[in-house]
Amino acid sequence: MNYMNGVKQEINKWLKIYFKDKGTYNKLIYDAMDYSIEVGGKRIRPILMILTYSMYNKNYKEILPVSCALEMIHTYSLIHDDLPAMDNDDLRRGKPTNHKVFGEAIAILAGDGLLNESFNILFGYCLNNPQKSVIEACKLISNASGVEGMIGGQVVDIISEGKTIKEEQLNYMHSKKTGELIKAAILSGAILGEADNKDIELLTEYSEKLGLAFQIKDDILDVIGDKNILGKNINSDCEKEKTTFITKYGLEECKKRCKVLTDECLLILDSITKDTKYLKDITLFLLDREF
Amino acid sequence: MNYMNGVKQEINKWLKIYFKDKGTYNKLIYDAMDYSIEVGGKRIRPILMILTYSMYNKNYKEILPVSCALEMIHTYSLIHDDLPAMDNDDLRRGKPTNHKVFGEAIAILAGDGLLNESFNILFGYCLNNPQKSVIEACKLISNASGVEGMIGGQVVDIISEGKTIKEEQLNYMHSKKTGELIKAAILSGAILGEADNKDIELLTEYSEKLGLAFQIKDDILDVIGDKNILGKNINSDCEKEKTTFITKYGLEECKKRCKVLTDECLLILDSITKDTKYLKDITLFLLDREF
Repeated sequence: MNYMNGVKQEINKWLKIYFKDKGTYNKLIYDAMDYSIEVGGKRIRPILMILTYSMYNKNYKEILPVSCALEMIHTYSLIHDDLPAMDNDDLRRGKPTNHKVFGEAIAILAGDGLLNESFNILFGYCLNNPQKSVIEACKLISNASGVEGMIGGQVVDIISEGKTIKEEQLNYMHSKKTGELIKAAILSGAILGEADNKDIELLTEYSEKLGLAFQIKDDILDVIGDKNILGKNINSDCEKEKTTFITKYGLEECKKRCKVLTDECLLILDSITKDTKYLKDITLFLLDREF
Repeated sequence: MNYMNGVKQEINKWLKIYFKDKGTYNKLIYDAMDYSIEVGGKRIRPILMILTYSMYNKNYKEILPVSCALEMIHTYSLIHDDLPAMDNDDLRRGKPTNHKVFGEAIAILAGDGLLNESFNILFGYCLNNPQKSVIEACKLISNASGVEGMIGGQVVDIISEGKTIKEEQLNYMHSKKTGELIKAAILSGAILGEADNKDIELLTEYSEKLGLAFQIKDDILDVIGDKNILGKNINSDCEKEKTTFITKYGLEECKKRCKVLTDECLLILDSITKDTKYLKDITLFLLDREF
């Protein structure tokens, strides 16, 4: 856990420095972007990228910009998801949501800004490291966050509200909305670390199972989580009449599935002939988390 | 003008094919993105990129993806600008704005989707053409659309509403909000066409003047334009108590400045030892346009 915490601290430090003293007439947009970045969070995606990369290359500070770009994408998606026209949430990580502090217009632009800035960072990284594998990793990320990834999942989430949806559609929604970016975090870490094809294949399988377990756990926490620990309102899915894994399979079955998926994840990691200790640690951490 | 129209048709064809038959569960987001792309517009930015590129390389179809990505960025910015929380416009290019047709949530996501997709296209282009100059052109675009470019200008626009702002701030706002993307269109076209440094320098000066003339003309049309030809409501800046070039300098002075800037643009083009005929045509077209 110490290693993971060290990584998290490096990520937070990089992000803090990135937004420090930025802006002139446009300073407000940096403040708004920084606000949602600084509210914190688990930094799961950049940590996953770095822990995977570290299996192949110990010098993970090299890829801090790429991993933090991924966190910016995640943060933009939260800001837009929280908007009144979307989930209309007032609270995120125990703090008022972006639009509650900066107003809707600036919140929309802060989201746009974070999405745009993340790609700006990635192109800058490609320019300094013009290997094909680096471009490939960036393409993977842009694909995962786009209409065939996270945005696609969010659209299905919105049009499904108040409707009972089929298992296939629920799986599509979650694999896109949450799964794709988690998968991209792990696979881009592997590609940047120059993992071989066999490992990439195993990590693909691992990342898909982990993403699914992560989402089921999220659904569980939305029902039985502690509002104060979670930092957001619970039962929000239920209030919005969303189909979740809980409404579909029930709480107990979800807990079971989450456990089985985690075990499968650990088994896959066992079959990789690298030091997978840290990935195992985070896999278990994600299962046991209370937030 | 025939050459320019030919280019425009190729751009429209590329965009049409791009969105054709896309999507499964997420089809709605493609429909919403396509709607705002299909509503049309002058396609000024991709045309400028291609006309600049054509001075150095006749085979402009090569860079159609890059130019269309730029149009997607422009279109996303219009969708988000039109939102109720922003300019709250009902009409764009004579048609209902995106949120009027698809609702606010989908309109926000359609904007996000276009921005993301444009970078996805750019990374795909870099992957197929992994030269440093290509990455450089993409970085220029992502910078121009970001918080130090278009988004930065939009923020200043929003926080200036109802206030009298200083000339310096007005110039910042417009050079960022409109100018940066026009400049990026021209310079990325030049970089992709492998223009030499001297030409890049001249085209930088040209693009800055053209961008400024373009914005002044926009402000003029907002006052004296024909709503039916423009396809949007006029006097909107005045109603929102925005400081524009008109409120700052008056109509006649603006017309004069626009003409002087255009003349300066033509002079710069004269000093470039390439065939600048088409760029001259579009420079004059932008001055004389009624929409």
